[in-house]
Amino acid sequence: MNTYGIIMAGGGGTRFWPLSRADKPKQFLNLSGEDTMVRETAVRLGKITGEENLFIVTSAAHRDMSIGYTEGVVDPSHILGEPAARNTAACIGYAAMEIIKKYEDGIMVIAPSDHFIKDEEEFVRVMKEAVKTAEETSALVTVGIKPTFPCTGYGYIRNSETDSDVYRKVDEFVEKPDLETAESYVDSGYYAWNSGMFVWKASVILGYFEKLLPDIYDHLKKIGDAMGTPKEKEIIEEIYPSIPKISIDYGIMERADNVLMLEGDFGWNDVGSFDALEEVYGTDENGNVNMANSLIVDSHDNVFCGPKDKLIAAMGVENIVVVTTEDGAVMVCDKRRVQEIRRFPELLKGTDNEKFI
Amino acid sequence: MNTYGIIMAGGGGTRFWPLSRADKPKQFLNLSGEDTMVRETAVRLGKITGEENLFIVTSAAHRDMSIGYTEGVVDPSHILGEPAARNTAACIGYAAMEIIKKYEDGIMVIAPSDHFIKDEEEFVRVMKEAVKTAEETSALVTVGIKPTFPCTGYGYIRNSETDSDVYRKVDEFVEKPDLETAESYVDSGYYAWNSGMFVWKASVILGYFEKLLPDIYDHLKKIGDAMGTPKEKEIIEEIYPSIPKISIDYGIMERADNVLMLEGDFGWNDVGSFDALEEVYGTDENGNVNMANSLIVDSHDNVFCGPKDKLIAAMGVENIVVVTTEDGAVMVCDKRRVQEIRRFPELLKGTDNEKFI
Repeated sequence: MNTYGIIMAGGGGTRFWPLSRADKPKQFLNLSGEDTMVRETAVRLGKITGEENLFIVTSAAHRDMSIGYTEGVVDPSHILGEPAARNTAACIGYAAMEIIKKYEDGIMVIAPSDHFIKDEEEFVRVMKEAVKTAEETSALVTVGIKPTFPCTGYGYIRNSETDSDVYRKVDEFVEKPDLETAESYVDSGYYAWNSGMFVWKASVILGYFEKLLPDIYDHLKKIGDAMGTPKEKEIIEEIYPSIPKISIDYGIMERADNVLMLEGDFGWNDVGSFDALEEVYGTDENGNVNMANSLIVDSHDNVFCGPKDKLIAAMGVENIVVVTTEDGAVMVCDKRRVQEIRRFPELLKGTDNEKFI
Repeated sequence: MNTYGIIMAGGGGTRFWPLSRADKPKQFLNLSGEDTMVRETAVRLGKITGEENLFIVTSAAHRDMSIGYTEGVVDPSHILGEPAARNTAACIGYAAMEIIKKYEDGIMVIAPSDHFIKDEEEFVRVMKEAVKTAEETSALVTVGIKPTFPCTGYGYIRNSETDSDVYRKVDEFVEKPDLETAESYVDSGYYAWNSGMFVWKASVILGYFEKLLPDIYDHLKKIGDAMGTPKEKEIIEEIYPSIPKISIDYGIMERADNVLMLEGDFGWNDVGSFDALEEVYGTDENGNVNMANSLIVDSHDNVFCGPKDKLIAAMGVENIVVVTTEDGAVMVCDKRRVQEIRRFPELLKGTDNEKFI
């Protein structure tokens, strides 16, 4: 059975404001110093599925941008535009229907477009095992991340042994814990971080849609029937915006009976906010993440981001994030409050500064 | 005797980097929210001398800029360009020679171009008294500022009573003190801040040059002889750069025998660094100086400066200075270290970032 890479690139992206903007969400940023997140994701996933089998699901508004940033890697006809953001169940169902209609069936390797992975070789090895597992067992397979510290920012997957050395059984998906709970999770050895990466047959996941999310399935079926016909675009634009908004985790993973997990240990990071750049981009000898053209004096443990033709000069500051952009938006934030940065674009709505959203 | 306002605008200006730049020193900045410092100074001094009697001495490189920023206030032919910066003795001697050659003699009211004065009415009153004193006594007259706190950033003038209610006798100019010394100065009642404002007859100060700084006087005489001739510009360009560099304080004020002081109490501030903007520009209810187009969340006691078409967004920060400019230089600095900001342009010399100096 063929394998297809499905890259979910529908994020709106306010967590990296003002680097990320309404017209340029996080997946189109270069946060590793190497390449944009979406292109890095595509190249990485191509090593598992072959680049000719890569698909991207993104907002229709960002389709052209996705084509541009993955030029030479992803076939432009494989970049599917969602007329509206309807959460991950819709996104994955849409892609599954595309695979069924185009290729009858296939293994889908689904990954977010905006995560960082340090050890690519190990990642490829684990994902190939996951593909094999999905093919052999017809289960819903996810890759949980072996926790390296009691993180309170991730959801966890409780899992238990099986007869296999390769995969474990998923018992429960649990919400982001408080610190004490997270510590007990990590100590137990039975919890992994939920990475949002999934591997399964297109036919299998559509079966789960039919059973567990029949309303969404009806929508997907109408879209599937139109695929390859002259009415495809029109029907998608009509149907898609009314698909119920639900995540694949809530809608299917937490309710399905046959869910397996492979444990991954390859330096995964969801790059959720500016403080994650310490791991993704690295720091200088004073603990500063320095992604700007900068002049830093007596400053430590900061994050500096800015274009190479601008300048950030800093003296005597610590534990702050300083971001500047081509169009002159400057943000400074206490590093302990980076989760709240998404409030800025919210607060700018309806003001004279909407152009900076 | 006529009165002439002499505005010293020769500062290079690195204390307000990156607002102030090599090609736009501090005197050309609007730091009060009202107008540029040099124009505010000219308008203020014009109320004492009449605007038609105002002169500006500035670097030749900034002559056009000075003309532009004082348009309609200062006669462009009264803006004297120094071919090189030779400190305040040269600057004042040059202006004195100009007054002598143009008008035979006159009272010079000399003020730096980059200071702030809150109570203009009281300023005008005191300066007019100073003019009267200089005319009647032929002394060197300075205006000392009544200290409002034991400031360690200013030089002080020790002074004592005279028979006059108007002026006091200057006993000594003293350097910037440490805090304990400053406290004793303020408690004593015999010390005033040295404001760098002087009032005297042109003929009297030139007499002191001849007596105390004969070398500089020789240079000034050659320049004076060329004034009004076709060779004026050529001679000034030849002679001026070799005038010894010395301040009027060291060269004359500390050594002259007949120095009087009037005490001024009109909200004077030399606007020496970004922290002075609290007094000059004012603060919001959280103690922030907000001179930028900004979005400020949970932040207090900061200074934000930036153009109105840019944006500064801040969250959870305190006691820092954040400055952004049209060309994308951003500076963040601990507010306790604003005196060191002049290090930035120094550090940028010889680097790829020289354009930001």
